[in-house]
Amino acid sequence: MPWDIHILGTNAAVPLPDRHPSAQALNTPEGIFLIDCGEGTQDRLSQFGVKRSRINHIFISHLHGDHLFGLPGLITSYSLFGRKDPLYLFGPPGLRRYLDTIYEITGIHLRYQCQVTELDTNKHYKILETENLRVYTLPLDHRIPTTGYLFKEKVAKRKIDGDAIAHWQVPYHQIEKLKNGADWEREDGSIIENDLLTVPGRPPLSFAYCSDTRYSPKLIPWIRGVDLLYHETTFGENLKDEARKRGHSTSVEAALIAKKAGVKELLIGHFSTRYKDPSVLLHEAKTIFENTILAQEGQVIEIISQQD
Amino acid sequence: MPWDIHILGTNAAVPLPDRHPSAQALNTPEGIFLIDCGEGTQDRLSQFGVKRSRINHIFISHLHGDHLFGLPGLITSYSLFGRKDPLYLFGPPGLRRYLDTIYEITGIHLRYQCQVTELDTNKHYKILETENLRVYTLPLDHRIPTTGYLFKEKVAKRKIDGDAIAHWQVPYHQIEKLKNGADWEREDGSIIENDLLTVPGRPPLSFAYCSDTRYSPKLIPWIRGVDLLYHETTFGENLKDEARKRGHSTSVEAALIAKKAGVKELLIGHFSTRYKDPSVLLHEAKTIFENTILAQEGQVIEIISQQD
Repeated sequence: MPWDIHILGTNAAVPLPDRHPSAQALNTPEGIFLIDCGEGTQDRLSQFGVKRSRINHIFISHLHGDHLFGLPGLITSYSLFGRKDPLYLFGPPGLRRYLDTIYEITGIHLRYQCQVTELDTNKHYKILETENLRVYTLPLDHRIPTTGYLFKEKVAKRKIDGDAIAHWQVPYHQIEKLKNGADWEREDGSIIENDLLTVPGRPPLSFAYCSDTRYSPKLIPWIRGVDLLYHETTFGENLKDEARKRGHSTSVEAALIAKKAGVKELLIGHFSTRYKDPSVLLHEAKTIFENTILAQEGQVIEIISQQD
Repeated sequence: MPWDIHILGTNAAVPLPDRHPSAQALNTPEGIFLIDCGEGTQDRLSQFGVKRSRINHIFISHLHGDHLFGLPGLITSYSLFGRKDPLYLFGPPGLRRYLDTIYEITGIHLRYQCQVTELDTNKHYKILETENLRVYTLPLDHRIPTTGYLFKEKVAKRKIDGDAIAHWQVPYHQIEKLKNGADWEREDGSIIENDLLTVPGRPPLSFAYCSDTRYSPKLIPWIRGVDLLYHETTFGENLKDEARKRGHSTSVEAALIAKKAGVKELLIGHFSTRYKDPSVLLHEAKTIFENTILAQEGQVIEIISQQD
């Protein structure tokens, strides 16, 4: 099954009527991973039919309000709706104190476990491993400590070789084990090795989320070849100095990162309010990296692994 | 000119697709007074065309998230949009620490003065006096320190007596002074007293905001005869025990307060999520107090003083 990204917010700094602060939901068969949580993210989850009960992990890139101010409401609503499952939060140092102060001031006692892991935003390292994927930090260059996130599927399941299965008369209940790489031990004790019965599966899926950041070529080796790169594009190329000063990237800079890293597809977002129609940023990016798409709220982007 | 109330949020605790957390804007000729600020209030201000530049005072009833979590976003957006005018915030103790923690964690330095006044929620007292109105606290009975707010216009301007003006041949430039109660000093030094030229204006306007609270008859003397009483109605009468336990009121209790205080009109809101259609609460309230209206988002309610 593919992954998909639900775009919940595309604007920088402040909400507009049709563009909201940053939030994306990575939907996988294993659950939904929410990345950033600007004000009103819980409204957008409802609006776009993203099942909040499937979210067990939330990743905050940095502690600016447009990536953070929706978190207290979402966390509180979970408790009021009777959530029982633990919720795992990841973000820069300060996230725990922010939430602890809010719990104390509002007097709320969450009815579920909400565990905060504060990250070293200067290092690239693995912060989570589930059955099917691993999550790594991506050190970014913004005005305050900021980290992107890299989601990498583990080796994908092997595919059944139909002819071989028929030839060897493999029983049905063995199929799932074979997909997971097991050999087949027959009743007489003999072994049929896995690679006689299956072929390699598709390459594992990968998604990198990079917001907010200045142009940062040190990202390139970490995100090389990912299926989808989300990279912020707050400004157009004519505001390159402004971008640098404010810790952001231009359309061309995002596209350069995508090109140099050889990613499959680039998704741009986090548009400055000055762009009533951000497609100008798309056109600029496409001059460098053709396979670029513009984030739009409510949009769902499939991440499908392509054979190289 | 009348006052009017813009309804920005009507639901208790959590947002629904068509009902949001508490916020109301009292629009007066002198400016807009925002009362409570649930998550997404800045979105609703835009959606309903309430000019945020006219807001200089924000009143928070208590520090539960559904009345508070929109404040950091609104305050931050003001700064990003270049606000220069001071903003005056009022609310229970803890409000300052909540905001200071957020400023520190997010690293924002507001570009305008944002002054917090923490209130004694156990006392009824005057907290603000402007040219045309006074604002008082209304001690409420909730689970945490909570205060309502009472807005009272000062004596309204006097009305010009057209016949008298014609008779005395009062020059046009004197009219505004006369409305404000001044006598007319003629060129020959003689005085025509104000009450020979004007008649009393309409009674001053008043609005009381009471959310969240248990049934609390001690409110009655403070809100007697107000033009509009907003009183929370989280539950129907069959959930009276639940209301008491959770620090809320029923439809009938809100109506009893309105009736006993002899208010002109009752506005109910802060509906529990269980009421898909809260008109059941309206019907219950009307059995006690006929002149009740149901808060609906986007609605604008005129407060017009009526002669008794």
